[in-house]
Amino acid sequence: AFAEGQVTIQMVNLGRVIVYLSLLGVIPAAIIFLIDLSVHMVSSARESISVTETGGWLGFFIYILTGVVLCILSTLVCRVLSVEAEGSGIPQMKAIMSGFYDKYKPSLSMWALLAKSVGLICAIGGGLPVGWEGPNVHIACIIAHHLSRLPMFRVLRRDRALRLQFMVSACSVGLASSFGTPIGGVLYALETTSSYYLVPTFWKSILATLTGAVFYDIFYKSPLVEALDNTQFDENDYRRRQLLFFAFLGVIMGVAGAFFVKCVKTVYDLRGRIIGMRGNRYLIVGSVALVSAALSYHTRLFRLDPREAINEMFSSDHLKLSWFDVFILLLIKFPLVVVSIGLPVPAGVFIPCFLLGSAIGRLYGEVLKVIFGSAIVPGGFAVVGAAAFTAGVTRALSCAVVLFEVTGQLSHVIPSLLAVLLAVIVGNGFGRGLYDTLIIMKKLAYMPHMRRDLAPTMTARQVMDREVVSAPRLCTVKEAEELVRDKGMDLDAYPVVGPDGGLIGSVRRSTLVYMIERAKLVYAKKGSSSSVEMEARVNPNSVSVELDEVGTIDVTSPVPIPLVPRLPSSDDLVLEEGIVENGARGSSSGTSDEAGGESGNKPEPSSTAEEEDRYKKPPLKRERKGGASSRDVSLLQQKFRIPVDLAPLTVTDTMLLGQLHFMFVMLMPTHALVLSEGRLIGIIRRKDIIFTG
Amino acid sequence: AFAEGQVTIQMVNLGRVIVYLSLLGVIPAAIIFLIDLSVHMVSSARESISVTETGGWLGFFIYILTGVVLCILSTLVCRVLSVEAEGSGIPQMKAIMSGFYDKYKPSLSMWALLAKSVGLICAIGGGLPVGWEGPNVHIACIIAHHLSRLPMFRVLRRDRALRLQFMVSACSVGLASSFGTPIGGVLYALETTSSYYLVPTFWKSILATLTGAVFYDIFYKSPLVEALDNTQFDENDYRRRQLLFFAFLGVIMGVAGAFFVKCVKTVYDLRGRIIGMRGNRYLIVGSVALVSAALSYHTRLFRLDPREAINEMFSSDHLKLSWFDVFILLLIKFPLVVVSIGLPVPAGVFIPCFLLGSAIGRLYGEVLKVIFGSAIVPGGFAVVGAAAFTAGVTRALSCAVVLFEVTGQLSHVIPSLLAVLLAVIVGNGFGRGLYDTLIIMKKLAYMPHMRRDLAPTMTARQVMDREVVSAPRLCTVKEAEELVRDKGMDLDAYPVVGPDGGLIGSVRRSTLVYMIERAKLVYAKKGSSSSVEMEARVNPNSVSVELDEVGTIDVTSPVPIPLVPRLPSSDDLVLEEGIVENGARGSSSGTSDEAGGESGNKPEPSSTAEEEDRYKKPPLKRERKGGASSRDVSLLQQKFRIPVDLAPLTVTDTMLLGQLHFMFVMLMPTHALVLSEGRLIGIIRRKDIIFTG
Repeated sequence: AFAEGQVTIQMVNLGRVIVYLSLLGVIPAAIIFLIDLSVHMVSSARESISVTETGGWLGFFIYILTGVVLCILSTLVCRVLSVEAEGSGIPQMKAIMSGFYDKYKPSLSMWALLAKSVGLICAIGGGLPVGWEGPNVHIACIIAHHLSRLPMFRVLRRDRALRLQFMVSACSVGLASSFGTPIGGVLYALETTSSYYLVPTFWKSILATLTGAVFYDIFYKSPLVEALDNTQFDENDYRRRQLLFFAFLGVIMGVAGAFFVKCVKTVYDLRGRIIGMRGNRYLIVGSVALVSAALSYHTRLFRLDPREAINEMFSSDHLKLSWFDVFILLLIKFPLVVVSIGLPVPAGVFIPCFLLGSAIGRLYGEVLKVIFGSAIVPGGFAVVGAAAFTAGVTRALSCAVVLFEVTGQLSHVIPSLLAVLLAVIVGNGFGRGLYDTLIIMKKLAYMPHMRRDLAPTMTARQVMDREVVSAPRLCTVKEAEELVRDKGMDLDAYPVVGPDGGLIGSVRRSTLVYMIERAKLVYAKKGSSSSVEMEARVNPNSVSVELDEVGTIDVTSPVPIPLVPRLPSSDDLVLEEGIVENGARGSSSGTSDEAGGESGNKPEPSSTAEEEDRYKKPPLKRERKGGASSRDVSLLQQKFRIPVDLAPLTVTDTMLLGQLHFMFVMLMPTHALVLSEGRLIGIIRRKDIIFTG
Repeated sequence: AFAEGQVTIQMVNLGRVIVYLSLLGVIPAAIIFLIDLSVHMVSSARESISVTETGGWLGFFIYILTGVVLCILSTLVCRVLSVEAEGSGIPQMKAIMSGFYDKYKPSLSMWALLAKSVGLICAIGGGLPVGWEGPNVHIACIIAHHLSRLPMFRVLRRDRALRLQFMVSACSVGLASSFGTPIGGVLYALETTSSYYLVPTFWKSILATLTGAVFYDIFYKSPLVEALDNTQFDENDYRRRQLLFFAFLGVIMGVAGAFFVKCVKTVYDLRGRIIGMRGNRYLIVGSVALVSAALSYHTRLFRLDPREAINEMFSSDHLKLSWFDVFILLLIKFPLVVVSIGLPVPAGVFIPCFLLGSAIGRLYGEVLKVIFGSAIVPGGFAVVGAAAFTAGVTRALSCAVVLFEVTGQLSHVIPSLLAVLLAVIVGNGFGRGLYDTLIIMKKLAYMPHMRRDLAPTMTARQVMDREVVSAPRLCTVKEAEELVRDKGMDLDAYPVVGPDGGLIGSVRRSTLVYMIERAKLVYAKKGSSSSVEMEARVNPNSVSVELDEVGTIDVTSPVPIPLVPRLPSSDDLVLEEGIVENGARGSSSGTSDEAGGESGNKPEPSSTAEEEDRYKKPPLKRERKGGASSRDVSLLQQKFRIPVDLAPLTVTDTMLLGQLHFMFVMLMPTHALVLSEGRLIGIIRRKDIIFTG
């Protein structure tokens, strides 16, 4: 379905896709710009009231007070409007991207958007050293979700593959619009949120980020808000023989990044214990804000927008600030960032890491310059250090690409890539990256990792759930109702088995519910002609859309719902009287003449076209007449044939867990049915093999 | 297995992977550099002999003669050493990458490497306007293939997932080393050779291209051979209001690119008919070389290395040549490139397209400059035009990224991306890209496209092959031998079914062959203790390696071969006397007490650990003693239990073709078994649903 997405798009729909993606580029970019502008205004107002106009101890007090109030407000907004808005947002998006769409749907609500925007403005405006790339990704995904519900895009929404491609594009837009990096945004989104990438997604993502970038270009190049400056290195600033220095910087950053992640985790765990005892999130946010404000008030550098500080680090000229300033910045910002990232406020990590990395790199470069003389350009080391530290923290190689686009220079391609690569490899040697750590800390479901307690050489039989409920092909209304009522299966589709236990296919829960209602209706009106009319009024396509709305994502199959679904009709009702309800289930072959003795032959012709024809033609009068004589037979004992509208993913019980995991990662089904010699013996849900925190 | 690749790499193997990838970066880069150097020397020698030293009509004659001889030599080399070396090489690599590894293995021979290198030197040295990126990709893939056969990397080779990641990295290296573009190379390789990309591949590709790029940096920055210069645009050279001009250029290039592809196809078809009549490839190559040489001799511009010409087009200054020169260049080169690309010589397309695009863009820019004045910088339009035309031809968005790296400037990010995106969308509106067209022209197998005669709403039942051969679980030696001898299945694994037709799993062909030999051995030595000793001498792991060597890629399952394979042993021989050979096959349930009445229960415990234990312990004496009394029973009537060492991909017969195609693209199996109510009713091979030219 994914690869198919590309093929099945009709030319008519191509236009829709382009319009959708353009809107997906522009709307989040506009919102992100507005947020950025608001942050700028809040910060300036705070700065001018406390520092410029008041000053002294009163100014200090006002500065701290406003900071604390804003940060507490940020927590409050998240708490009241949507808890999903707390934190980066990238981990949730990663979970959604790995197929847990339904599970994390709440985080795509409009309330989350509002909470995220307001919370982010308050948190950054309040002086917390947090980034905005994660919240921006979250915001873009919310926009993508709601945009796809507009009537004109509803037809696209039905294609599950396309919908996921749109989500990936949304992630790209969120990142690209944060820094004006159309290519880096796409690559960074790919690395941090996906486990694989389909080539047809590429142009979609680029289209979305490009429209966003045009928007960014127009607004950020105007002097409304801060932006990262282009660097102005000479071509000769990087010399080949300095490559070893850059490599060493990469190794340092790998260690530093791993240390940073470790600190974040330790602080989070520690606080978890404290909150567990006291339970006061506001107190914690307030105290962090207080410390941050108290430490920032006296040095202009600390009150700066991080982008200005980064520009300073990257500059080719001599530093306006002394080494000592940079060192102090590092000493104060590092623990502050570590603490802030885990706070219950919207908080990204990219920009703070970029700042810390550039500071480390600049120091490293200045030291080298003292030792080796003026051939060393410390600004270059700051640039490479920023990319490498961020890569060491997030384990995304595309940090380097983001950096090239941000600085507008490609003079340091080789040293940057080298340092980033080493930082990622060294960092991975110490453990997981930050986003994965956050996923584990927040106990989110997570596709790519197999559960650690399972060995890849185990077989499906060893991990499957034997408690699998299945529907017999010929089913009484009572049986069907029991099946639908049984919540134990937590599935949106049920396997349908033949009389001897062989799997035929699956039926959607919604279809089954519809079938039961139809069965009751047909039974009630049996003998009258009204059922024929009702049949005509039910347009298969419109019903399909409704089912789709109810059933949200198509649950079992990785492909989009067929355009003309094989909908159940009263024609499927086999009105046999007097057969006890468990007749068709058990050992069979003999009780029902239709179901028995079909070894190797399917009861249904299974040609889609044929079936459609059959469903479209009005119910045979013969059957209705035959049924007329049996009105006194209890409705619940009525048998009807369950339609098969999904082909489930099936595996043999001997399949190795490694293979299974691969199938779950690549095809993203919710479950797979386990067959042994063709008989349904169990079910494997995604959570059975995948790490879920 | 793909995603698994990342997880299963042990720390020990990580070192091997890094060494492997570094070699994969350096070796092809060195070879490519040597080829480039040779081309340079051949061209200079030819130029100096004919133009500088001789001149006049004699020089003209020598120039043409050397050109024709070199080009014919190029064809000859390919013909004699390896026909696989003809053409770009990217289409073959695309076919290999989409899972047709075995089918195109011949193109990975050392002969192909030699033919490709020598052929490329002769073709470019002989003056044909062909590129080298495709041949370079091919060369890098050959290196990757042979490198993986070194003893120290053999352990990596067993992981099929890793092997494919290495091939993708090799493609990246080939491209990156052609132009010194580590990031663009990775993205371009991804877009042109893969249908999806796994994130763990990213760092591997970057590592390989980076080592290649360091090499490139050292050698190309020295004045040995030509390289593309960095451009020197001002920051203000691109103005926002010019975006419409760039967009229009993108649309033009989309049309031009599609036209180019159409021309290539037409010329190729036309020549196919002529060669079909005359059959003389040398004559055709010779005449193209003659025309090319005759047209190039009198203008220095045409004899230039294309990189120098491109540098000229990109320059910010006034053109050294007149508009008219550029126009003539376009007029002559366009048809020459079109004709040359399909010739039976090694031939890439990137650089010629880059040249044509830059010429068109420069002309466009110069015209705009005349109309709108000096705000227009024609060099910028040449840069964007080069990327857009190449994208229009190859349909790869990453042409833009390659361009940024080649020019070393990011000033034109937005116009480049915009133009490239439009060129790709417009181009796609007209038909397939060049590489896909070449694949069709050369009738290569090709994964991503579903066969056009099939609708995605068809079901598995409608496309499957009903002629599926399966092995019964309890099988006589004779039956097994017949199965192995039957070539009709063209599979490397056979499905194993239970007594009532339910699928149990698959058995590798090699395992079956081994089983038969073991069965004969055990039968011959039955009663003596020698079989026990032989058992001990066969180390399961070493056998596995051998099987792996014979069976090359693991055929059915998308996962790597389990590390401790469940190997057959004499323990599996169930020496039952007097049972006729077709006893266990047919309707069963009663004939063999072990096979019958197993509804829902598998005969084998199927726990891997248990099975291994069972296989490892020596054959039970009881069985051997029991067998001792039946030596007179014919060997061929001996029954033995077929082991199941693969879990095949299974689908229900109701699965839609769209779903099936998706599974084949993502999981890359050779075939899938079709089950109806659990019974094996057919088989779907890759070629049944995938476009194969």
